[in-house]
Amino acid sequence: MRNVYVTGIGMTKFGILPDMNLREIGETAVWAALKDAGLKPSDIGVAYCGYAVSGHIYDQELVMGHTCLRELGIKEIPILRVEQACNSGGFAVREAFLAIQSGFYDVALAFGLEKMFGRGTQKAVDALSKGLDTELYAEYGLTPGATFGLISKRHMYDYGTTVEQMAMVSVKNRRHAALNPRAQFQKELTIEGVLTAPMIAEPVTLPMCCPITDGGAAAILVSEDFLRKRNCRKPVKILASVGASGSPSWTYKLSSHENYAISSKLGYEMAGLGPNDIDVAAVHEPCAIMEIMTYEGLGFCPMGEGGRFVESGASSLGGRLPVNTDGGTLSRGHAIAATGVAQIGEIVTQMRGEAGPRQVEGAKIGLQHCVGGYQMGDACGSTLHILERSSEI
Amino acid sequence: MRNVYVTGIGMTKFGILPDMNLREIGETAVWAALKDAGLKPSDIGVAYCGYAVSGHIYDQELVMGHTCLRELGIKEIPILRVEQACNSGGFAVREAFLAIQSGFYDVALAFGLEKMFGRGTQKAVDALSKGLDTELYAEYGLTPGATFGLISKRHMYDYGTTVEQMAMVSVKNRRHAALNPRAQFQKELTIEGVLTAPMIAEPVTLPMCCPITDGGAAAILVSEDFLRKRNCRKPVKILASVGASGSPSWTYKLSSHENYAISSKLGYEMAGLGPNDIDVAAVHEPCAIMEIMTYEGLGFCPMGEGGRFVESGASSLGGRLPVNTDGGTLSRGHAIAATGVAQIGEIVTQMRGEAGPRQVEGAKIGLQHCVGGYQMGDACGSTLHILERSSEI
Repeated sequence: MRNVYVTGIGMTKFGILPDMNLREIGETAVWAALKDAGLKPSDIGVAYCGYAVSGHIYDQELVMGHTCLRELGIKEIPILRVEQACNSGGFAVREAFLAIQSGFYDVALAFGLEKMFGRGTQKAVDALSKGLDTELYAEYGLTPGATFGLISKRHMYDYGTTVEQMAMVSVKNRRHAALNPRAQFQKELTIEGVLTAPMIAEPVTLPMCCPITDGGAAAILVSEDFLRKRNCRKPVKILASVGASGSPSWTYKLSSHENYAISSKLGYEMAGLGPNDIDVAAVHEPCAIMEIMTYEGLGFCPMGEGGRFVESGASSLGGRLPVNTDGGTLSRGHAIAATGVAQIGEIVTQMRGEAGPRQVEGAKIGLQHCVGGYQMGDACGSTLHILERSSEI
Repeated sequence: MRNVYVTGIGMTKFGILPDMNLREIGETAVWAALKDAGLKPSDIGVAYCGYAVSGHIYDQELVMGHTCLRELGIKEIPILRVEQACNSGGFAVREAFLAIQSGFYDVALAFGLEKMFGRGTQKAVDALSKGLDTELYAEYGLTPGATFGLISKRHMYDYGTTVEQMAMVSVKNRRHAALNPRAQFQKELTIEGVLTAPMIAEPVTLPMCCPITDGGAAAILVSEDFLRKRNCRKPVKILASVGASGSPSWTYKLSSHENYAISSKLGYEMAGLGPNDIDVAAVHEPCAIMEIMTYEGLGFCPMGEGGRFVESGASSLGGRLPVNTDGGTLSRGHAIAATGVAQIGEIVTQMRGEAGPRQVEGAKIGLQHCVGGYQMGDACGSTLHILERSSEI
């Protein structure tokens, strides 16, 4: 195995970006990553573009990666779009990692972009419902929101999780987002405010759901050979990069943790570490209950203890294992295919000690986890990365 | 570099498949490849699903790969959709190759599927127009058909290529397809018939354009270690697997060969071979002129000699370098994201000596090339594979 590092990260602000078209969102994120890395467009050997729902919204389904990179002068190299629903960005990073591992490339670009506003909310919601197997779910009204309602109810039934604990996830992530100028939402929430907000699908209220978001994010991965030769800026080492699918079953249980279990087992084994070694984590919570399930699935706390984990303050800044220091999907925003790459960006920022008021003191090991799609009781797929602060910083 | 082999191939019939939904098309192709390889679903370590236009047509944009593989019991492994317009299938094979090269996997599945009929021809044509940068082309009426008309005119102007020579590509590929029971069209054409057929965009007539097609194709790639351990069936060695993009430019020339030049240089270097070593080729001709340009771009003949190459019979069965022995995109059909994988299937079939009446006698080296998307005078991207008949056969 080759040693692989992240040396450049970039992102647009997440939120409503009426002045940027799809191409400009991608260009801006990639250009920022190139500048951050101190590399030229011609240094890039291969590029993976995460892109999931905006094709449906803006009628530009195909070759979006080529379109974004053309004006930056990135050409001749393989440019491939990857899609795994909400986790398209996580898989863009994973494919970049594998491409370097293959020995054929030394510098790989992973980026993701979406523009979800501008054609009406209904169009965006339509696009999102494609993340569930249409035949099994969407046609019966099981949109993502409705599914999260059922999952929340099941978790409450199985483990005694409370709606207040779910609200605490929303409040915590908004508090973190208030410290992140690139986050979509910065105004703090209260538990009372979350619980009395409009109901989406009982017991899930509006602030327990992620928003619709425009945004792009990019990361540049390099081999150790390239790192040494070019003296790259503030490299962060990738200790583990894994991908997995769930284990859908006709006898399904709505709140399955199997996808988390598979990817975290692979990831911890690859890194030679366990959940107690993680100093900071970026995980995917399109709904508050998902963050609680992720604590459990990744072993941050015992099964069923996720609600109490957030209540204890363990996952808050200042706690034992701060989670979603950038505000997470709920408050940084969820520009679908950009999310996984933005998570990597936050962990790299934390490893570099450059997170400013949201910095986790002394953080040396960070974890990124993202899931995408949903069918038959389990997320369709997931990626997990474990990053390490390197001695060069 | 590890040695990688193709050991299983499968495809549906290409054409109009009203009795199969999208999931069944994918399942059928993958199941056929598993049976062909003599492998079990649990042998697969990673899967890449090419899928380009059917999401737009059938409103199932996301997680199609997971949906296809679920009922076959392929789960827990990474399943990723890849898209590079018409070349999504070629890149699925390339990513499978890179995944094995990474050392993390020994068995990788590449498959592609589309269902383009069933929601009306206009819906399919709309979806196809997304393969061109919408801002630059589609909004000005430069659909794929119109673009091919302009490219044909330019090639005629530059090199003296004739419409009769273009018609010969259509006639030849239909003659080959008549020997392929899985091809969409089997009724032979005449040059007169092609020239007097309805005009699409001068000088391109209907039989010079590929049809709209339903279909799926799959290929299973394995490492040499796995091959030896499991005594895999009729393996065909991959000598080269490369990907590239074109070099779009504002000062563009409509009939650029740059994408072909880049991928063939990389591919021939990797294989240590040249165009004279190729015994049979599967190339992408969504329009007849593209096959003529491919002869030139891949060095099968000198630049500008493509029209005379087909006229000489060199690219026909029985000629010096038979091209598109399965009928090609024009007559096998173009189930967009399945095409690149079906091309690999045809070359594997030829290398195994199992192509029946369309077998190229003594073929030892075969080449696959596919391009996808179009912007500013060049195809967006391309993949090229060179395969070798192995001594095990």
